[in-house]
Amino acid sequence: MVSRVGREIELSPVEMGSRLGRKVEIDMASGSPDPNTIPLQQIRDAYNEVIESRGPSSLFYPGAGGQHELIDEIKRYLPSLKLNSKGSIVVTSGAQHAIELVAKYLLEDNVIAVENPTFVETLASLKHRSSIVLPVNIDANGISIEELDTMTKVIRPELVYVIPNCHNPGGVNLCEDRRKALAEMASERNFFIIEDDPYRPIAGDVPSPIKNHDRTGKVIYISSFSKILAPGLRVGFIVANDEIAERVSLLEQLDFSTSTINQYVISSLLRKGFITSRMTMLYNHYKRKMKTLIDSLTDAGLSSFNEPKCGFFLLLDLKKNAFKVLEETEKRGLVFVPAKGFFLRGGDTWARLSITKSSEEQIKRGVEILKHALNQIS
Amino acid sequence: MVSRVGREIELSPVEMGSRLGRKVEIDMASGSPDPNTIPLQQIRDAYNEVIESRGPSSLFYPGAGGQHELIDEIKRYLPSLKLNSKGSIVVTSGAQHAIELVAKYLLEDNVIAVENPTFVETLASLKHRSSIVLPVNIDANGISIEELDTMTKVIRPELVYVIPNCHNPGGVNLCEDRRKALAEMASERNFFIIEDDPYRPIAGDVPSPIKNHDRTGKVIYISSFSKILAPGLRVGFIVANDEIAERVSLLEQLDFSTSTINQYVISSLLRKGFITSRMTMLYNHYKRKMKTLIDSLTDAGLSSFNEPKCGFFLLLDLKKNAFKVLEETEKRGLVFVPAKGFFLRGGDTWARLSITKSSEEQIKRGVEILKHALNQIS
Repeated sequence: MVSRVGREIELSPVEMGSRLGRKVEIDMASGSPDPNTIPLQQIRDAYNEVIESRGPSSLFYPGAGGQHELIDEIKRYLPSLKLNSKGSIVVTSGAQHAIELVAKYLLEDNVIAVENPTFVETLASLKHRSSIVLPVNIDANGISIEELDTMTKVIRPELVYVIPNCHNPGGVNLCEDRRKALAEMASERNFFIIEDDPYRPIAGDVPSPIKNHDRTGKVIYISSFSKILAPGLRVGFIVANDEIAERVSLLEQLDFSTSTINQYVISSLLRKGFITSRMTMLYNHYKRKMKTLIDSLTDAGLSSFNEPKCGFFLLLDLKKNAFKVLEETEKRGLVFVPAKGFFLRGGDTWARLSITKSSEEQIKRGVEILKHALNQIS
Repeated sequence: MVSRVGREIELSPVEMGSRLGRKVEIDMASGSPDPNTIPLQQIRDAYNEVIESRGPSSLFYPGAGGQHELIDEIKRYLPSLKLNSKGSIVVTSGAQHAIELVAKYLLEDNVIAVENPTFVETLASLKHRSSIVLPVNIDANGISIEELDTMTKVIRPELVYVIPNCHNPGGVNLCEDRRKALAEMASERNFFIIEDDPYRPIAGDVPSPIKNHDRTGKVIYISSFSKILAPGLRVGFIVANDEIAERVSLLEQLDFSTSTINQYVISSLLRKGFITSRMTMLYNHYKRKMKTLIDSLTDAGLSSFNEPKCGFFLLLDLKKNAFKVLEETEKRGLVFVPAKGFFLRGGDTWARLSITKSSEEQIKRGVEILKHALNQIS
């Protein structure tokens, strides 16, 4: 009477966290960028300019695949992501929508492999369409190629899902050797890779994308303007081989969800070079806040984490049940995301701490609350 | 290697038509509202006001289900649609996205029934998830209850999909008796109805929704701000029983596609009463243009159509292959949509003519081109 995904879908811990986050003083749950970094004036000017210059056509149906003007601007933008433009571009309503579209296209009860841990919300789009989800551990240098190699010798996945930069929730970057090895393995063993790379624009100097090493069109590159600009516009994109790009773009006819005017707003801001001009500034901004978190945790004797290289998140082993710890911290005004949902095995004692919505003072205070809560729990 | 929908999806004739439409003088293909009716200044003011008053929160992630402020405004808006607010509201990225979400929730190789003809793009979301699609003919008063009754005695559909007002492509309205009968049949025979009602705000004085007669929560009401305001914002909504609304809202976690700022823009325009203030004006506007089309066709001796009561479309039997006719009209600068894709059986000789993008002069000229083309073809 109801579809598989209709039965299986659950409230994500991130969505739950961000709902809780609105009610407390210190929100270390949110995956939204730092509100202070959202360039209100430039976005406002862009809306005015787009409506002024384009008139009614700024508000027509978007059509499938994206506005030509935006696609052209994204092409010019790719070198600043170190991406060799191999393949075609499809505009989407953010990276989550992009992954949903690719999953809708590729998967029908297939075997897939994902990082353990991985991002719980994108995982949902993949797992509800898969028969088996193979978890591959990550370390300080990203996904373990050895483990993936061993697994894929035994069972061929249709798709491997990877977050190469500023991993969510792990905070780590995938090292260059492993990027090459991944692309090579995909070509040899005939599986697709989703390279989910929304953090690259704020990641600082990271190795070039896995997609650059892609000989056979097996890597599907996905990014977004949510971190570098603002998530509320809901604009992202896919770079994939021509066949996948064409089919995925046709699938957009099923939702037509990407706002036309918002596409033109992004297009305008790209054309002016405004988006690329923010990259280093935002990398440094988050780096500074992350250092505050790392220092505070270290000072508090909480050191079970891989040091995040960039991005919004630090994954901390609390060594105690994270949901119980959250109950305690919530009373004192701190919310974070218990990370169990990000893990395919284990994860009960891990917390995802975000640095975006809290000030440096709040981060310090948040760590104090966390430390206190851990002491409360036997 | 690829999912069913990934294999089956095709370019829709509407999408093809609107691509062609951009290249010619007279676009009678488009499903976009009349560009002259898009209230640029008010939308622009609303963007400025929302960014000014809400600051960064206007550009955060939307979360699943919709912004509370917009949901509250939609509740207050429902009486102007004659809808008794039974059930919960889910905000979506337009009606197409709403139907995709409901289909994703409900369908997994089920039997469904749709009007013949029906809207080809929403049909795509339904048919790729169905085993059997039962076509039920429409006449000047909408879907045939007799046919549906006969069919559903033999085989129970999971879902019946209906466009009750300003039918796309048929132009007709469903009469009141049939609305009651449909709701009753759904309760008795235990199937869901999708009541797809994006045209109601511009439909004039039509009977109240099927949903008003829904005793058992089987009717899923869907509408949009695309016709009354502008399609490029991509905002629509679902009114459904609490369970469906909750599950469908969770499914939005898979795409998070509805722009936050656009939701606030709609919310602001609803609060000011601007959207309801346009209803009669737009009904009259399209009524006048439709009269021009009807008169021109009648004068040209082309009379094989049900007179549209409202909306954007007239469905005309050309009595000749519509694709061949289109080839001829295109040479002379007229594009329309051959309606075959809207039919589950037959339809080769039918054309969907839209009145939105053409002026009254262009409509007259379009009919002349059509008449000429029909004379050219043996």
